[in-house]
Amino acid sequence: MSGTDKFVEDLTDKSDDFSRWYGEVIQKAQLADYAPVRGCMVIRPYGFAIWELMQAALDKRIKDTGHQNAYFPLLIPENFLAKEAEHVEGFAPQVAWVTHGGNEKLEERLAIRPTSEAIICHMYSKWIDSHRDLPVLINQWANVMRWEKVTRLFLRTAEFLWQEGHTAHATEAESEEETLKMLEVYRDFIETEMAIPVIKGRKSEQEKFAGALRTYSVEALMSDGKGLQAGTSHNLGQHFAKVFDITFQDVDGERRHVWQTSWGVSTRLMGALIMVHGDDSGLKIPPRIAPIQAVVIPIYRKETERAEVLEASHQAASLLKAGGVRVYVDDRDQYTPGWKYNEYELRGVPLRLEVGPRDVAARQVMSVRRDNRAKEAIAWDFLAERVPMVLEEVQKALFQKALEFRESSTRSAATLDELDVVVSEHRGFVRAYWCGRNSCEDQVKARCAATIRCLPLDDHSEPGKCVVCGADAPHRVLFAKSY
Amino acid sequence: MSGTDKFVEDLTDKSDDFSRWYGEVIQKAQLADYAPVRGCMVIRPYGFAIWELMQAALDKRIKDTGHQNAYFPLLIPENFLAKEAEHVEGFAPQVAWVTHGGNEKLEERLAIRPTSEAIICHMYSKWIDSHRDLPVLINQWANVMRWEKVTRLFLRTAEFLWQEGHTAHATEAESEEETLKMLEVYRDFIETEMAIPVIKGRKSEQEKFAGALRTYSVEALMSDGKGLQAGTSHNLGQHFAKVFDITFQDVDGERRHVWQTSWGVSTRLMGALIMVHGDDSGLKIPPRIAPIQAVVIPIYRKETERAEVLEASHQAASLLKAGGVRVYVDDRDQYTPGWKYNEYELRGVPLRLEVGPRDVAARQVMSVRRDNRAKEAIAWDFLAERVPMVLEEVQKALFQKALEFRESSTRSAATLDELDVVVSEHRGFVRAYWCGRNSCEDQVKARCAATIRCLPLDDHSEPGKCVVCGADAPHRVLFAKSY
Repeated sequence: MSGTDKFVEDLTDKSDDFSRWYGEVIQKAQLADYAPVRGCMVIRPYGFAIWELMQAALDKRIKDTGHQNAYFPLLIPENFLAKEAEHVEGFAPQVAWVTHGGNEKLEERLAIRPTSEAIICHMYSKWIDSHRDLPVLINQWANVMRWEKVTRLFLRTAEFLWQEGHTAHATEAESEEETLKMLEVYRDFIETEMAIPVIKGRKSEQEKFAGALRTYSVEALMSDGKGLQAGTSHNLGQHFAKVFDITFQDVDGERRHVWQTSWGVSTRLMGALIMVHGDDSGLKIPPRIAPIQAVVIPIYRKETERAEVLEASHQAASLLKAGGVRVYVDDRDQYTPGWKYNEYELRGVPLRLEVGPRDVAARQVMSVRRDNRAKEAIAWDFLAERVPMVLEEVQKALFQKALEFRESSTRSAATLDELDVVVSEHRGFVRAYWCGRNSCEDQVKARCAATIRCLPLDDHSEPGKCVVCGADAPHRVLFAKSY
Repeated sequence: MSGTDKFVEDLTDKSDDFSRWYGEVIQKAQLADYAPVRGCMVIRPYGFAIWELMQAALDKRIKDTGHQNAYFPLLIPENFLAKEAEHVEGFAPQVAWVTHGGNEKLEERLAIRPTSEAIICHMYSKWIDSHRDLPVLINQWANVMRWEKVTRLFLRTAEFLWQEGHTAHATEAESEEETLKMLEVYRDFIETEMAIPVIKGRKSEQEKFAGALRTYSVEALMSDGKGLQAGTSHNLGQHFAKVFDITFQDVDGERRHVWQTSWGVSTRLMGALIMVHGDDSGLKIPPRIAPIQAVVIPIYRKETERAEVLEASHQAASLLKAGGVRVYVDDRDQYTPGWKYNEYELRGVPLRLEVGPRDVAARQVMSVRRDNRAKEAIAWDFLAERVPMVLEEVQKALFQKALEFRESSTRSAATLDELDVVVSEHRGFVRAYWCGRNSCEDQVKARCAATIRCLPLDDHSEPGKCVVCGADAPHRVLFAKSY
């Protein structure tokens, strides 16, 4: 693809204009592009390759916990969406409507799924009959559409890709266990594969999913100090089961409504990846989800050096491939090594391996880490052994750095004034007591545009006084401005 | 999932009512279900697991031939679709239109993609600038929608899943090479993985893709004697490049339009799988794409036998899992072994492994092939070695049987009367001479509802006389009734 030649020099400094830097990184690293339909994006091959690696890692976890994939229809009849009152109220304003099929006007409008509870519940009411049919543990990978007013690549687009799990259980306890199990799957996936630390917690009543009994989420902190909801897991209770009439004959012969969950993560995570790890030189992709984990750059000046350097470069790549490393040799003549260094830094390739005439003579390659630019000469004989170790070190270092940033960016506040100052001056997460009333939550939002990200599950503090009204508050919650 | 208890006994004989048999197999093996939106389907977990294995096998081939995956938007502005005259004429009657986003009427209608040439060409015109950007080799896995009047699960549904490759090249020769390369990828994938023999050929002018220069296809014969187009590969020429203005600066400094291809296969292949291999007992899934390759059925009468039989069953499964076999132990107490035999025959599991008290004593399992019901006692010590061999034998036998059926169902005809008799009485493929005129093609269609499936690439016959008009005909083509 063209047009990368002048990109790196042009990249805006992250500290100068974070939002502009974000957009430029996406365009210049060719992760995604704007589509001609408002708010829609094209995910380009490099961006999609990252998404595919993320998908594979998460899909494995979803299957290992007993779920199966399936596929439900894109279109949902309007009356289905309307059945659950909170659900339709939450989603109707964002729905894209199909009104015509071919040359004919449809009798009923069809929604492009903003989420699939309504259509899936309809099918479950047909499929589930006995306690022996439970639990139903199904996931789907799909595109969904929410007609957003303000959009930003990956973070908020009219169409996005996601997975949505939908399960049905015989008891409330089982549905709650499932909800928390998948929340933990998300934590493990995001922290282990994406090197992004997250906080597990419960959403406030106002922030929960439209139609859910309880919503849990994993919350991450971006490097500009704003929070991002990285994944959600909902205990739907029996809300949908009652309106879609999903019942089963229990062991005691009684017919009961099922208990349901749903849970999802989306291409939004690509936005988190960029914003958590990236720097002024561009992306930093954690090795486990990097399409290219190591790039080999041949370096030569004279034509006489060319053949041996290229041969050594490809031999190094073969050794690494055999060792399971995703490696690429950039042997293009039309670009200088220096240009290539910038290019692969921009694209966030975790490790650069330089091969010059002196390296050939010394039977080594010079490795340079993307995350901290640490150099290390690696002898050929240890290449296949050492490179995977370095990649694992990079993976851990990225997580550690993000974790340290989050810890140093998490503050506490005892009053609304304090909370306002912390949010406005420092950004980051703020732990503060909250009494549980919507009105106090609203006051924080009005005062400093921060919302309750979650009620962290790991918060074991003593009861205190609400940061807004001073009333008794059972526990501290996490406030932040957010994407 | 419920409702399978009485299924097997009810299955209609294939020879009595093929169409009904087809629908029942899909429902009873829980491959798919009808959705509440007309013509749309739900792909259930067992069906989707087959599709996932097919996807993985084809995706590997697509990547091994140098292509990368990406994702383009679901919605296409009406004016984009209208740019290529033949293209819009071919697809407009089948388009589902989005007219409202949220509560607002859109200024321009948006088509749910029936295929993505229009949106992808728009992006390529932005991305391609120099000969160094070529070739562009991109594929996407996506859902598409065609508002069909008459639908049938998998074969013709309003929404279906597919992959669509879209490439751009500097020269006509390269685009033709790509078109034929992907046709060969399809042949290899369908024959090797799905055990379905196909004939590669070129489509007639009337049957080609709307907007293409040339369309090639792989054609399969179903076991009811009707043909099915299993995949297509189009040389788009410069038709789209000209209307979407996709140009590049060539090595000589001139700006030229690119040459393009597109190619796709869809969930329609699931229909072929059922119709080619299935029998009166249900599905027969080729082992390479079978979610369960071997099912272990524990058999015991007395409670005293139960423990040792179950232990041996799970041990056998562990051995096989370690050997890379996808194996499942059905140790449910509420069903008899006989019920389970029927169930897994219906579901097309290639191999059944029975473990009874005598097998435990003899340190063996009794294997029964789904395709020919051949029995074989396999000693424990050879299980991990022998089962993969048997699975490979089943794979080959399924292909061989389908090939023999196709060969014995392929006839020739010299006159329209003969062609009519052969098509009506025997069905199957008919090889006959055709002069190349649309009018003769139309006459065959009017007379016996057969169409030209393709001009086979392997036909090296001498020129002859057209089966309709008797004029000189350069070669024989393949006629058939088709899905």
